[in-house]
Amino acid sequence: MNTRPIGVFDSGLGGLTAMHTLGKRLPNETFIYFGDTARVPYGGRSEATLLKYARQDVAFLKSFKPKVLVIACGTVSTTCLEQLQQENSLPIIGVVEPTCLQALHATKNGRIGMIATQASVRSGAYERMLHRLDPDVDVFCHPCPLLVPMVENGRMHRGDIVIETLVKEYLAPLKAKGIDTLMLGCTHYPLLWDVIGKEMGPSVTLISAGAAVATAVETLLEDSHMEAPQTSDSHRSFYVSDEVESFTRNASLFLQEDLHQVVRRIDIDQY
Amino acid sequence: MNTRPIGVFDSGLGGLTAMHTLGKRLPNETFIYFGDTARVPYGGRSEATLLKYARQDVAFLKSFKPKVLVIACGTVSTTCLEQLQQENSLPIIGVVEPTCLQALHATKNGRIGMIATQASVRSGAYERMLHRLDPDVDVFCHPCPLLVPMVENGRMHRGDIVIETLVKEYLAPLKAKGIDTLMLGCTHYPLLWDVIGKEMGPSVTLISAGAAVATAVETLLEDSHMEAPQTSDSHRSFYVSDEVESFTRNASLFLQEDLHQVVRRIDIDQY
Repeated sequence: MNTRPIGVFDSGLGGLTAMHTLGKRLPNETFIYFGDTARVPYGGRSEATLLKYARQDVAFLKSFKPKVLVIACGTVSTTCLEQLQQENSLPIIGVVEPTCLQALHATKNGRIGMIATQASVRSGAYERMLHRLDPDVDVFCHPCPLLVPMVENGRMHRGDIVIETLVKEYLAPLKAKGIDTLMLGCTHYPLLWDVIGKEMGPSVTLISAGAAVATAVETLLEDSHMEAPQTSDSHRSFYVSDEVESFTRNASLFLQEDLHQVVRRIDIDQY
Repeated sequence: MNTRPIGVFDSGLGGLTAMHTLGKRLPNETFIYFGDTARVPYGGRSEATLLKYARQDVAFLKSFKPKVLVIACGTVSTTCLEQLQQENSLPIIGVVEPTCLQALHATKNGRIGMIATQASVRSGAYERMLHRLDPDVDVFCHPCPLLVPMVENGRMHRGDIVIETLVKEYLAPLKAKGIDTLMLGCTHYPLLWDVIGKEMGPSVTLISAGAAVATAVETLLEDSHMEAPQTSDSHRSFYVSDEVESFTRNASLFLQEDLHQVVRRIDIDQY
């Protein structure tokens, strides 16, 4: 039993797809969420810049003495996870391994697609992990640099020709490869679930990095007996590095609860 | 006569539209350009965050002891110019006044449109300036939050349904107002000149903030006798806060010269 909080961070809104599943699966836990909205998007930045930003994100969350840290950001998970794990003694869970495990479980023809940010694709982290877990699968990756800005600006609905055209264009090379499973390797992308699902069709299984990492956290807490007692009051706090209004509005919509007065702003450069 | 450099900054690539004109008009001057690529885009951020970023941008450029600073960024010009001018003794020129002067010169029916980032539109800076210069004109402003990410990702050409749809959608309310002049209040937007020009049609005059601020710099140097001698060797240096490759590639394309080995990276948080 362990009543300390779980720290979760992302560049912006995307990590809420993990928070959504975490909240449902672990109703007694306390969560601290940080979205680095003053520096979003992360996906086009270099590894050196990402490591610097990720270290600050971790340092901020560690000030709450969490029992586990969740990197609900595909870009940081693919580029900095090992470094962050080496530098910190608490368990840190990224999205890559959980997402790959779910994809391997889902695929029937062994042809798996992956979409993510530029930095995540460049890292090669998903291919390496999949081939470590199963050397026989074929993996096809494609970067989607404009999807995070689209989601952060609320353009994620079917019928919007802008998002539908971008998604169609980004997915065409993967459709051509005959994949039967598609990993959404960025936690923003499940917000485009309908658009992506329509484009890929019902024969392709979508795997959400956000939901996958939530499952991994659940397993870790169980295996290491770190769950909060069932009598605990769940509590969630949200922090951002830029103004709270637009994050609160979008996050309230997404989590379908009123987050006004719950989101606070911090200066991430102090960490 | 004054051989010291001219400092120019923007959040990313956009300020190159000012550099392009500055280079042609002032061939004997030395320029230092800074693009804050580790934190682009600026347009959706709050005023407090923008002021912090802008102060760091100014502090970096001041390390070169420039004779004048050019804020080739619409968002910083509309939100922080006065504060930066109060805090610094050297002349600082933003894009708002030069752009408004050119728009007033161009309009025949007194109906002027303005497109810019969310932060610039929210500031009201363009309306205030236009009405100070001419209380009788009508001004219509519209934010275009996705155009900077589009340009930074190279999606700026006619025939691309994504950029054409966004531009059509953003411009529709301004077309409905019967404007005859459109200010491009963000220095990234001249890179969309063809797309915007096609949408507005030949009867609407486009005003580029980048070119307008270059004209203002030229006038300031002449009026205050601060020009470099005609025998001076012109020199341009480029600095960015994230990796140099993609900036170099895009900037070389835009300025139509090879910038390899010319662009250097700095840590903007040290300023």
